[in-house]
Amino acid sequence: MPSKYTTIHYHSYLDLDKVLDAQHPRSLEKATGKPAHDELLFIITHQAYELWFKQIIHELESVHAIFKQDNVKEKDIGNATHRIQRVTEILKLLIQQIHVLETMTPLDFLDFRDYLFPASGFQSYQFRVVETLLGLKNDKRITYNSSHYASVFPETQQTHLLELEQQGSLVERISSWLERTPFIQYSDFEFFTHYNKAVKMMLEKEQTAIQESPYLNEKEKEMRLMMLGNSSTYFASVLSPDSHAQLKKEGKIRFSYQATVGALLINLYRDEPILRMPFMLLNSLMDVDEHLTTWRYRHAQMVLRMLGRKIGTGGSSGYDYLAETAIKHPIFTDLYTISTMLIPRSQLPPLPKDVEDALGFFYK
Amino acid sequence: MPSKYTTIHYHSYLDLDKVLDAQHPRSLEKATGKPAHDELLFIITHQAYELWFKQIIHELESVHAIFKQDNVKEKDIGNATHRIQRVTEILKLLIQQIHVLETMTPLDFLDFRDYLFPASGFQSYQFRVVETLLGLKNDKRITYNSSHYASVFPETQQTHLLELEQQGSLVERISSWLERTPFIQYSDFEFFTHYNKAVKMMLEKEQTAIQESPYLNEKEKEMRLMMLGNSSTYFASVLSPDSHAQLKKEGKIRFSYQATVGALLINLYRDEPILRMPFMLLNSLMDVDEHLTTWRYRHAQMVLRMLGRKIGTGGSSGYDYLAETAIKHPIFTDLYTISTMLIPRSQLPPLPKDVEDALGFFYK
Amino acid sequence: MPSKYTTIHYHSYLDLDKVLDAQHPRSLEKATGKPAHDELLFIITHQAYELWFKQIIHELESVHAIFKQDNVKEKDIGNATHRIQRVTEILKLLIQQIHVLETMTPLDFLDFRDYLFPASGFQSYQFRVVETLLGLKNDKRITYNSSHYASVFPETQQTHLLELEQQGSLVERISSWLERTPFIQYSDFEFFTHYNKAVKMMLEKEQTAIQESPYLNEKEKEMRLMMLGNSSTYFASVLSPDSHAQLKKEGKIRFSYQATVGALLINLYRDEPILRMPFMLLNSLMDVDEHLTTWRYRHAQMVLRMLGRKIGTGGSSGYDYLAETAIKHPIFTDLYTISTMLIPRSQLPPLPKDVEDALGFFYK
Amino acid sequence: MPSKYTTIHYHSYLDLDKVLDAQHPRSLEKATGKPAHDELLFIITHQAYELWFKQIIHELESVHAIFKQDNVKEKDIGNATHRIQRVTEILKLLIQQIHVLETMTPLDFLDFRDYLFPASGFQSYQFRVVETLLGLKNDKRITYNSSHYASVFPETQQTHLLELEQQGSLVERISSWLERTPFIQYSDFEFFTHYNKAVKMMLEKEQTAIQESPYLNEKEKEMRLMMLGNSSTYFASVLSPDSHAQLKKEGKIRFSYQATVGALLINLYRDEPILRMPFMLLNSLMDVDEHLTTWRYRHAQMVLRMLGRKIGTGGSSGYDYLAETAIKHPIFTDLYTISTMLIPRSQLPPLPKDVEDALGFFYK
Repeated sequence: MPSKYTTIHYHSYLDLDKVLDAQHPRSLEKATGKPAHDELLFIITHQAYELWFKQIIHELESVHAIFKQDNVKEKDIGNATHRIQRVTEILKLLIQQIHVLETMTPLDFLDFRDYLFPASGFQSYQFRVVETLLGLKNDKRITYNSSHYASVFPETQQTHLLELEQQGSLVERISSWLERTPFIQYSDFEFFTHYNKAVKMMLEKEQTAIQESPYLNEKEKEMRLMMLGNSSTYFASVLSPDSHAQLKKEGKIRFSYQATVGALLINLYRDEPILRMPFMLLNSLMDVDEHLTTWRYRHAQMVLRMLGRKIGTGGSSGYDYLAETAIKHPIFTDLYTISTMLIPRSQLPPLPKDVEDALGFFYK
Repeated sequence: MPSKYTTIHYHSYLDLDKVLDAQHPRSLEKATGKPAHDELLFIITHQAYELWFKQIIHELESVHAIFKQDNVKEKDIGNATHRIQRVTEILKLLIQQIHVLETMTPLDFLDFRDYLFPASGFQSYQFRVVETLLGLKNDKRITYNSSHYASVFPETQQTHLLELEQQGSLVERISSWLERTPFIQYSDFEFFTHYNKAVKMMLEKEQTAIQESPYLNEKEKEMRLMMLGNSSTYFASVLSPDSHAQLKKEGKIRFSYQATVGALLINLYRDEPILRMPFMLLNSLMDVDEHLTTWRYRHAQMVLRMLGRKIGTGGSSGYDYLAETAIKHPIFTDLYTISTMLIPRSQLPPLPKDVEDALGFFYK
Repeated sequence: MPSKYTTIHYHSYLDLDKVLDAQHPRSLEKATGKPAHDELLFIITHQAYELWFKQIIHELESVHAIFKQDNVKEKDIGNATHRIQRVTEILKLLIQQIHVLETMTPLDFLDFRDYLFPASGFQSYQFRVVETLLGLKNDKRITYNSSHYASVFPETQQTHLLELEQQGSLVERISSWLERTPFIQYSDFEFFTHYNKAVKMMLEKEQTAIQESPYLNEKEKEMRLMMLGNSSTYFASVLSPDSHAQLKKEGKIRFSYQATVGALLINLYRDEPILRMPFMLLNSLMDVDEHLTTWRYRHAQMVLRMLGRKIGTGGSSGYDYLAETAIKHPIFTDLYTISTMLIPRSQLPPLPKDVEDALGFFYK
Repeated sequence: MPSKYTTIHYHSYLDLDKVLDAQHPRSLEKATGKPAHDELLFIITHQAYELWFKQIIHELESVHAIFKQDNVKEKDIGNATHRIQRVTEILKLLIQQIHVLETMTPLDFLDFRDYLFPASGFQSYQFRVVETLLGLKNDKRITYNSSHYASVFPETQQTHLLELEQQGSLVERISSWLERTPFIQYSDFEFFTHYNKAVKMMLEKEQTAIQESPYLNEKEKEMRLMMLGNSSTYFASVLSPDSHAQLKKEGKIRFSYQATVGALLINLYRDEPILRMPFMLLNSLMDVDEHLTTWRYRHAQMVLRMLGRKIGTGGSSGYDYLAETAIKHPIFTDLYTISTMLIPRSQLPPLPKDVEDALGFFYK
């Protein structure tokens, strides 16, 4: 039995025999080939990506485990947030890695590019797992070559990806958790009615102020009122369960109505002690989203620089495809919607005393 | 007369009386207003942006001065490159500043957002100067509210922007400089014929190799040959002055034919001593472009996060507009095109000895 | 009366008339001087530093205001933490700025360095305010030229720095707040006895395990036991109020005994919901410390690179002085000490049920 | 025979079977152990370090190969510089990785720290190779536990490190290359006499200007003259081959006298076309040094945070040792010395016409 006091060496602990023996530049193998100095950089960069993807999956799985509990424990929210923040720190690293890879010039890449065909980053299984765990929906994926994104994987991996999709993504788990946000209704207090009224009052006040302002000329007033009208329409649609249901049906929204209300409450009252951590959790999810799309965008830029409009080794059209994923593949879009629904704190009537008390915590 | 030995103090040297007395949060001024803690962050971040824009303009103007000479001196190329690289370092800082501004939450922003109307980042004059000096073309600009981007400025500034546009951007100055690339023709050597032949041979060799490969199945061969066909068409169009003229007319290309050939030569033979610095210069311009568009993209993300789909204080539709500029406002697109035209070094016939000698430098 | 709807322009809102008219390169003013291209970079970099220092002071003052209350409200801890985290984000930017300034080569600096004498970064008043607000102790400061660091400032500023010192730094305010950590004693539960026992048991268990291990040779056992002995002595000293008092008297420790115990409790039980935010607060203070010293270190490196061993314009010995401040000027050293006192979670006996309940929060 | 057209898959190309099967958290293996969530992060971070070390070694070896040629080709200088710059980009990534590892809190580390004993980062063989290739001298190494740094490695690795040391580091190769700097003597022109005279004139002019300045009071004059005296002494010592020989003997300098003169010439006349690339090379070496020591410094900070004053798993005293290496282990100190020797361009007499011509390059 190995023991805590078994002697262990850095080299064996990290299994460096394997890790450092896994670089096989194809430009070196070829009888006909010429050694291409930069192929090692290409290999090592991608291996580092895969190592970090493994870590990201480890973190996301543990966050899934937390949120699939029926009753998510308060003490787990801090841990979950911390782990999601770690994913963001890792993504920052992955974005920085692009700078390293960009030290390879297009001409250097051509020295070994032919050997890679038809291998492609599209064949990164772990990256697909990351996307699926987070909640990139299959029907939102931009396809290339009109084939299913998973078709490049062996069958067991295809099956596993399918299972992951079916067991529910982080988007859905967070939605379920948000539905149970306390204080949406608390004794006599109904948050949504409260909010609804505030919105209405705010819009009316604005309208009067604009119309009576001696500082605006007619054209400015008109434009202001038009903008206000848009906001008004927007709020009306957001506050209505029916229009929410419609948007959900169209796939434009993924959170349930109740979850959206929960997220709104958390954002508006995030200063109350028991809502602070949930607020940070939601924030950390947007951070992940933002950095993942930034990585996609930087990746697209790099491909443009490296290949111009050449076709990628995987047969994709390269830049166009990747740039499109940067714009169209954000995942936690429902959280961005919350920003549109926020109203200034000064417009919010104060919470009833008993609700405020219940949202704090006290000792002694 | 002030002298080198006049005593000077840090505070007066930096004119901190002015710099540190220029923050006037509007949320503090209002009789009716409530102090908004984060307004200072908003002001200082934007002032820092403007300080750095001033520095970028200083660098770009000095680069313009270098390239508007009839005979750009070799010793100036190093300086120009260094200054363009500095612009990239500054842009990295500006991208990083977005992280700082994002510590302001949407709710905190709402505390003072109303006071800003209708001020807007669109009113940054210096940013427009930067774009114009680099070479963003007016007719490429995405408009919002269907008004000219310069209409928000006082007349003298509008005039100055117009003058800047007319006196030629960096894109055009670089194009002129590239046209004079030596060795496009040198004694008996004609670079373009040389390159042309290499492309043709490469394409033929590839075709045979694919057709005869025992490793590819029919479908794979077909796809490979199709890709090759595309490349072939592409090269044909690139190599033809007529099709180049057509693309230039359509505004898809900005470099002259001769400049494109010059840039291609520099990229293919960048290892020759006298071409190294020109190569680094071209590279540094792509770096600026890449970081400027990244900044646009991150800016768009931040706006989405802050406002959701709300309309910006300047009346723009915010996210959509900004994201579009990130995709559509790159400037040195002609340089990306060069990547598409590159062929592997191994396919290039060696340079004639006299040309190679002339491209080196020798002493004693 | 200005109104919310007064029209405001980006340019006037940011008072750019002042901000952009505050750059006066001395190399341009001189009759005898020669324009030095890089002096503008030098000025703007330092102005940007001062802008950000102003922001840091704004944040630190608001954090001071929170912690000088007799009863710090729970809902303020989240805000305080958020603002301290923002200070770290700003410090990251300041570290990045050094990269920009380093694009100025030593030779370029010499073009205008003489004009700066005897101005010096030592004359940054705002930086001294930042240090004082955080809690750099005057008697810990490394002096240069054997004069008081504040002697370079006008009298009113000297007085203000003195007042700031006397009214108590963040170190002291945090110490006071930590003293009131709940649950150090709660009904029958005495945290410190609890911890004390766990330490003792852990040390005994380790000793036996080492002595009986079949995997270690005699030399390894000896070394292990020696390390354990050190730990044992260390813990004994830490757990004793007397030795703590002694270290405090010697200036090696700044937190009170009770505050140290509070910080320890927060670290060990940070997963309990009501301790999560306090834990994050302590963590954020270490982040500030870490980035501030990194900035000092990078600053020292830059000076070495720029000047070699030349003497700075302020008369200091440059690199040596600055490198020493990087090593010797950390501020929240008491928090690093906590790491030394931590023991593995597995060694901690579980909390009594009533204590654990009290550390959570619950709603319907 | 494998061919360029053999089908290859991303997964096998990157040998992910090995790379992703090399993580063996010891906290999972133990019968008695408890799974520690963060051990995977610890493993993966260090594996990523080792991957990048492999890449750094690849780059450094290729740079060595370039500089061990008797006649370093001009066209290789560009490549060498590019590869050294790449090393800096990788080091930036390694510094950033520390942020990721710091998301592990001290308490989380304690969950598995015991299992690691006595493995330690001191056992990273590749890191020692990097240090040795660059030129960290063995007798400059700070020892811990009074044993030779290589004693933790198997014999073949010890032998290889010894061989690397003996075959000459980059410091020595660069020194040899600098000795051959052209134009140190060129026809009638002797650079060093030229420089010597300029220094002398500059010092005299300064002295008169100070003594006659109506702007300085007596105390200021005195201080200025004292500083000037120091500079004067310094220059005298630098300009003398004897004192150089003495400093070299004492190990304070590593470049030969001739190499120092070469580096000085390159720095002062870097704008001349053929000296630009050599200047960039020297600069890139300082960048590597700066980032490597920053990494050491950040590493020290992280250890302090994680362990406080606890003793490291390898038996070292942790923070103190590591912080000392950050201050004392820079490698290209000779290049920093050059900064001290620089004089303002305005003090340099113009180059003779024939020398300036020879330093440029011209075509048609």
